[in-house]
Amino acid sequence: MNTLLLLAHPNLESSISNRRIIETISSLKDVEVHSLYNLYADKKIDVAAEQESLVKSDLIIFQFPMFWFSAPPILKTWQDQVLSPGFGFGAAQEDFKLKGKNLLLSITTGGKREKYHVGNSYNYTLDETLRPLQMMVNYCKMTYKGYIQSNGRPFTEKEDLDKEIINHTEKLIAFIKDF
Amino acid sequence: MNTLLLLAHPNLESSISNRRIIETISSLKDVEVHSLYNLYADKKIDVAAEQESLVKSDLIIFQFPMFWFSAPPILKTWQDQVLSPGFGFGAAQEDFKLKGKNLLLSITTGGKREKYHVGNSYNYTLDETLRPLQMMVNYCKMTYKGYIQSNGRPFTEKEDLDKEIINHTEKLIAFIKDF
Repeated sequence: MNTLLLLAHPNLESSISNRRIIETISSLKDVEVHSLYNLYADKKIDVAAEQESLVKSDLIIFQFPMFWFSAPPILKTWQDQVLSPGFGFGAAQEDFKLKGKNLLLSITTGGKREKYHVGNSYNYTLDETLRPLQMMVNYCKMTYKGYIQSNGRPFTEKEDLDKEIINHTEKLIAFIKDF
Repeated sequence: MNTLLLLAHPNLESSISNRRIIETISSLKDVEVHSLYNLYADKKIDVAAEQESLVKSDLIIFQFPMFWFSAPPILKTWQDQVLSPGFGFGAAQEDFKLKGKNLLLSITTGGKREKYHVGNSYNYTLDETLRPLQMMVNYCKMTYKGYIQSNGRPFTEKEDLDKEIINHTEKLIAFIKDF
């Protein structure tokens, strides 16, 4: 089984959680990691290369820090360009090149998971922030495998953060290995 | 009452709906229009200028074509940069500079409104695509004024499209004037 992980972190050098997660995941067998901001600093996505990697993959993972209840903008640039008509969707069945492939989300949030509920300043659940990505999965006839989430900076104490990152990474490794 | 409309269309020259809507809205009194892709072709947002315009506004409108169930990426770039700590939110009450301001969404979609439901290939409602923006509104202590939506290209016949655009524009003008 081949895994493609797309990382969307605008400043990986100053990242704590995402950088550590990625360093571990990159060493796994059969996992290809695309750090989108590093690969495409000029925001010009190599659409053909991305599509080729997708076609070879069984499991696709979007890894990102959540800012303003969604992914950093390059992931949207990637979606708008890579999931083109005739590849991501279309009039014919064969236009859905990602059909049956699996998508897992791997997310770090500033706000703790328990902050996401009605009555809080967010007023929606964490799951609800992911609707646009879930809809993309549905539209492309992929299979949604849910999400792994941990609480990153800036609201976490050092020790808690270590625990969060290790826990997140272990869950992600287990998911990939059991897949 | 001052209105600030942020337009996020990556290719306004080839747009039909958004261009016509904007041409009309731009001529209204007390409405400032920022076409983000035209102003910031290099993706470098003038944060100070954007914040200054926001502070002067009572009603803020996000106008965009919906691709992949969310806005084009520049609107996310704008959010991540302009709604900074101490302006969009923060530890103190005075850090919420947008508190009490109103946000309206003005959206064109390829898929018709009635396609957005459980059981369809989207499998969620149109309202649910907007959760991340609604959460931003909540988090910034703004007031959410809902959305105006019309069905743009490519799935609409010419005559229907004209009707949709006129209807959308009229609703938007009425909202701004009645505000």
